[in-house]
Amino acid sequence: MAGNTFGTLFTVSTFGESHGKALGCVVDGCPAGLSLDTEDIARDLRRRRPGGGGPAASKRREGDEPEILSGVFEGKTLGTPIAVVIRNTDQRSADYDRLKDMYRPGHADWTWEAKYGLRDHRGGGRSSGRETAARVAAGAVARVFLASAGISVQGWASSIAGIDIPGPGEEGFDVNEAERNPFRVPRKEYDEKINDALEALKKEGDSAGGIVSCSVTGLPAGLGEPVFGKLDALIAGAMLSIGAAKGVEFGAGFSAASMKGSENNDAPFPAEGVETPPGAKALPAGVPSLSFRTNNAGGVLGGISSGMPLLFTVAFKPAASILRRQETAGRRGAGDLVLEGRHDVCIAPRAVPVVEAMAAIVLADLLLMQRCGRV
Amino acid sequence: MAGNTFGTLFTVSTFGESHGKALGCVVDGCPAGLSLDTEDIARDLRRRRPGGGGPAASKRREGDEPEILSGVFEGKTLGTPIAVVIRNTDQRSADYDRLKDMYRPGHADWTWEAKYGLRDHRGGGRSSGRETAARVAAGAVARVFLASAGISVQGWASSIAGIDIPGPGEEGFDVNEAERNPFRVPRKEYDEKINDALEALKKEGDSAGGIVSCSVTGLPAGLGEPVFGKLDALIAGAMLSIGAAKGVEFGAGFSAASMKGSENNDAPFPAEGVETPPGAKALPAGVPSLSFRTNNAGGVLGGISSGMPLLFTVAFKPAASILRRQETAGRRGAGDLVLEGRHDVCIAPRAVPVVEAMAAIVLADLLLMQRCGRV
Amino acid sequence: MAGNTFGTLFTVSTFGESHGKALGCVVDGCPAGLSLDTEDIARDLRRRRPGGGGPAASKRREGDEPEILSGVFEGKTLGTPIAVVIRNTDQRSADYDRLKDMYRPGHADWTWEAKYGLRDHRGGGRSSGRETAARVAAGAVARVFLASAGISVQGWASSIAGIDIPGPGEEGFDVNEAERNPFRVPRKEYDEKINDALEALKKEGDSAGGIVSCSVTGLPAGLGEPVFGKLDALIAGAMLSIGAAKGVEFGAGFSAASMKGSENNDAPFPAEGVETPPGAKALPAGVPSLSFRTNNAGGVLGGISSGMPLLFTVAFKPAASILRRQETAGRRGAGDLVLEGRHDVCIAPRAVPVVEAMAAIVLADLLLMQRCGRV
Amino acid sequence: MAGNTFGTLFTVSTFGESHGKALGCVVDGCPAGLSLDTEDIARDLRRRRPGGGGPAASKRREGDEPEILSGVFEGKTLGTPIAVVIRNTDQRSADYDRLKDMYRPGHADWTWEAKYGLRDHRGGGRSSGRETAARVAAGAVARVFLASAGISVQGWASSIAGIDIPGPGEEGFDVNEAERNPFRVPRKEYDEKINDALEALKKEGDSAGGIVSCSVTGLPAGLGEPVFGKLDALIAGAMLSIGAAKGVEFGAGFSAASMKGSENNDAPFPAEGVETPPGAKALPAGVPSLSFRTNNAGGVLGGISSGMPLLFTVAFKPAASILRRQETAGRRGAGDLVLEGRHDVCIAPRAVPVVEAMAAIVLADLLLMQRCGRV
Repeated sequence: MAGNTFGTLFTVSTFGESHGKALGCVVDGCPAGLSLDTEDIARDLRRRRPGGGGPAASKRREGDEPEILSGVFEGKTLGTPIAVVIRNTDQRSADYDRLKDMYRPGHADWTWEAKYGLRDHRGGGRSSGRETAARVAAGAVARVFLASAGISVQGWASSIAGIDIPGPGEEGFDVNEAERNPFRVPRKEYDEKINDALEALKKEGDSAGGIVSCSVTGLPAGLGEPVFGKLDALIAGAMLSIGAAKGVEFGAGFSAASMKGSENNDAPFPAEGVETPPGAKALPAGVPSLSFRTNNAGGVLGGISSGMPLLFTVAFKPAASILRRQETAGRRGAGDLVLEGRHDVCIAPRAVPVVEAMAAIVLADLLLMQRCGRV
Repeated sequence: MAGNTFGTLFTVSTFGESHGKALGCVVDGCPAGLSLDTEDIARDLRRRRPGGGGPAASKRREGDEPEILSGVFEGKTLGTPIAVVIRNTDQRSADYDRLKDMYRPGHADWTWEAKYGLRDHRGGGRSSGRETAARVAAGAVARVFLASAGISVQGWASSIAGIDIPGPGEEGFDVNEAERNPFRVPRKEYDEKINDALEALKKEGDSAGGIVSCSVTGLPAGLGEPVFGKLDALIAGAMLSIGAAKGVEFGAGFSAASMKGSENNDAPFPAEGVETPPGAKALPAGVPSLSFRTNNAGGVLGGISSGMPLLFTVAFKPAASILRRQETAGRRGAGDLVLEGRHDVCIAPRAVPVVEAMAAIVLADLLLMQRCGRV
Repeated sequence: MAGNTFGTLFTVSTFGESHGKALGCVVDGCPAGLSLDTEDIARDLRRRRPGGGGPAASKRREGDEPEILSGVFEGKTLGTPIAVVIRNTDQRSADYDRLKDMYRPGHADWTWEAKYGLRDHRGGGRSSGRETAARVAAGAVARVFLASAGISVQGWASSIAGIDIPGPGEEGFDVNEAERNPFRVPRKEYDEKINDALEALKKEGDSAGGIVSCSVTGLPAGLGEPVFGKLDALIAGAMLSIGAAKGVEFGAGFSAASMKGSENNDAPFPAEGVETPPGAKALPAGVPSLSFRTNNAGGVLGGISSGMPLLFTVAFKPAASILRRQETAGRRGAGDLVLEGRHDVCIAPRAVPVVEAMAAIVLADLLLMQRCGRV
Repeated sequence: MAGNTFGTLFTVSTFGESHGKALGCVVDGCPAGLSLDTEDIARDLRRRRPGGGGPAASKRREGDEPEILSGVFEGKTLGTPIAVVIRNTDQRSADYDRLKDMYRPGHADWTWEAKYGLRDHRGGGRSSGRETAARVAAGAVARVFLASAGISVQGWASSIAGIDIPGPGEEGFDVNEAERNPFRVPRKEYDEKINDALEALKKEGDSAGGIVSCSVTGLPAGLGEPVFGKLDALIAGAMLSIGAAKGVEFGAGFSAASMKGSENNDAPFPAEGVETPPGAKALPAGVPSLSFRTNNAGGVLGGISSGMPLLFTVAFKPAASILRRQETAGRRGAGDLVLEGRHDVCIAPRAVPVVEAMAAIVLADLLLMQRCGRV
């Protein structure tokens, strides 16, 4: 598969360079008959927009007005490809002219040239974070489909600049706060501390990393294909396809590596009275409904959803664009580089809707897969 | 894609249940003209075999004699599918009869039934660790191809039962030791400590998790497809497709999330005199050869290999099969379960060749992709 | 996709050279819970076997005993990959040694070397008609699945050596006769005429072409994906993937090119009382059940099945292996070639189960697709 | 794969309904560094436009101004997805309002509803011939790539309304005439006869079918994947994915079915002095260059290109939209239908660039495949 398409039945193709005319996506395989309008997409694009993010955010204004070109008729999806275009309007290419012959540290400038021989030096091109706007647009379509099946995807920043925020089940955790909060953290008390840390880094011309967590609820048991198409394998691939992601873990994750089996195993118990989620196939005849005492597994057993919330966490490196002088190299040899312009100090808050979008795209695909009726 | 095939140009399909007649793989897309014989595959299967692994290892003897059915003629690959079959010989299905109606905690027994309605209750079926023998066989073919291009994949256990082993660049690290060592740890002094920890767990009827690290050297710059087909995205998906894997990270990984950009960015510098690896395309005209002062990125920038070693780490949960009494449920309701039989206390040592195999399969695919001449 | 795997959800991979150890297939995506045993596969392999075919048939005995290695437990499919192996037992490689350096006219010997640089000169390797045994084995699995949904695939030879046999709706046509008949022709009276024609060609050391027709009944409306995944597009691709196929047409086919629209359009009418086939989804709410006065379309409109029988026809060139002296070339230049050994005079009769198998594989895939619930 | 994407390495996704805002394509996998501008695409779109086609053509004016949104920078392809959008400007939806509840004979109206439950009744939606504009745009990109490798794709109408036009090698055949000719026929003398036939049909409110032939020159030997990915299999699938196509044949095609092997086999001979085409890999060491005395095979042997011109023929049914009263059915039962509006009498002339486009897309994919270096 050429690398710009994702999925098997619910597929997403994205296109567009950061400083070209437009970027966009084509979503293929979305079921017919779902209500969908531009605002469903615009809403998620606004959540991704800088400016909600305090000093962490770049001052670029990305208007990001999506236009749906196809696949929707009289407010309903047709089952045909849904093409969405977002015009680029605020690119300031001039900022980038100096970069024509220098490779920015931490960016893909040189590896891109090593692969293709040329690049759009006005920005990261396809490796720019801007490409994720197209993913968020596609993810919004996926979320509409998932919502019709009672499935909800919710992310938040769980660590910023080394400051860890308490997680689900810990005191003060409020996932709705993440929606109101410029840093997408689920506990209001951390605002000021994070703000101070990022302001300090901004003064130094430096940047910070962060961690994004995500929870999916309403997921029926039985999603995920065996062996290579495991639910967690597909989510992991989707997450590491986001530019600055450096790691992913599920449930207890890396900490499970130092646990005992007796601590880590989640005990099953009969879950009488639990209803089949609206989008799910009923369990096959004779298979009982179960639940689990704990969720170290993060909602996935043997690559197949267990009906418990899917929980995973994605590590993001600090933003590569910093304003401090850096050693680097270019087409004409070694040299120092001082970047200018508007850059995010920490991308984690803006990465939240991207993480959600990619998870939604994976799950939409697996939900269709499950419906294909392998039983 | 049905879930038992992996890859785009270099594809691997695996088949076989843990207690069926046989398991095996079909490797499609392997270039013609490579020297390949059964011993190339048998060697890696022996590295995966229990028994080298001290008390960590199950006492099952898996003879694992591979038979190549196709794709090789007079000792050379034909460019046609290479089918390898490994007969199951030591299954002891009787051990599993009691499990027909009970779901083992930490296993995929119930999620599998929730998906398919029935399962081969004699063992994990396709979700058994035994399935990885087929991957190792396929990986051995991939490694022969990679070796012809000067690329080497080497893994080791970097943490077992919570005991962390010093990594590359730290004192006493010797990757060759991992090959001699029953626990696949790259520092001999840790043998005894690990042995004691695992023996203690075994007496308790309990199990341990672990972490496997992997380094790929000889990789040219330019491997990996943009956006969704990133090198690290494909590796991440491959790693989480291994049964007990719960997380993966690249280079600085999760620790990058608390670093500053100025600490994390790897500084590039002109790498004069560095030769193009034998299997690589030369860099496009005008693109200089570079190297990097550090490797926090783990060898990948913007999803494309940088020419630095690819470094990644995979977390494995403790083995789910423990001999302690556990609460569980079955087709007839709740109940306790006491497993018997032979089980690995820690699977990390045996996971090392599986991690290597999956990495090799991904890289073989990307190497063919790069050769397809997108420039 | 590497070229030896076919399909999206119901996938078939084949492997094996004509003169290697074995050939076989891996069928992935077959639903769980279907009754399947070795005899289901062996039956179709016998239909493909030479010897039923009078003088048209090669005297090679291909025992073709299939062994199911995986995916079936206690007589039921598990939903996991079904691997089937057929050992090669009667290869007589010696017959082929002279061909090491000569390219047989009409065969893929040279194009294969032009692509791969080497070949298994003992026969056609993967381009041998023998490879179709693996397809027939996979098709038998697909047919079991289709039968569970009330879908039946039936082929016959409709022209041999230029002798056209009357088709459906014409006097004396009896599709069951094709099963009893060595030439797979659906009208007994043509036996002798065909036998004489083929005997005459055999004496000349020459060969004949033929045409195979196929009808699929029980197919629900709504199968086929729009645009590139059209039902007829997939069938056409599947048919031309059979070695000696040179053309395919649907319904009125090439003759439609000289018809008027008013002659060719099939008039729809309400089909009250027609029941939804057992494997089909019910029609969406508000969509009436229709039938058609004629079937020039061959059962497909806009790439989607109409509920009328799917009808198509495949042209096969005369067998390339003839015993007459032929001009050819080899590694050492031009030269004449006289083939020896056992060869089919006309492959059309033996191609019937191959055509059926490929059609069944396509339809199994599309049936799963339809079930994935795009509505 | 969802049905709106085609190809493996060089992939084309199309989107857009006939009466929606726009249609377009995303071409992924096109090599970097090729010169490409809007005019390359506009040129082929003009060839597809009605109006060149005399009375055969619909009077709809389709402006078809393509806009390239991505993948091209400073006149060169970047190796990233090339998105092209064509706005719909002349749709006259009002013409179609009466069709909301009636199914047009010969169209996909009902099969589409049977699949999706709803449709854009303003026209054929995705099953409209209008969708092929997006294919032609994508094909234009493929042709630029093929041209860089010395490969040329040229189609013509070889039969219209039952009038057969002499083919290659026959007297008066001039493929360049097809470019000047409104009916795309390669022999000027047939103009008047065809014009008369189509005018007569137009007066009757009826329509005509036709046959399109295509020749590809400059193709190196070795293109095509074995078994399922054969060159002719992929072309056949691509051709039958065109709405009104009912059959395809290669070289001698259906007539080969009544030939003898000794007539049909093309004799190979050493082709000294023949140069490797510019885009082709050199033949592997030791493999001689060959040519063939005849080309009954149509340029493909065992699914792999032979270096001879690729020759194939596609049958198109008569246009389904006729102005004569027709029996049909709708949501409310049986009824007669009289279509109005502008419709092509024969689509074959306009299908020529579509056939070329689909062939070019297949060949671009296989050319990349060949370059991936399986040898």
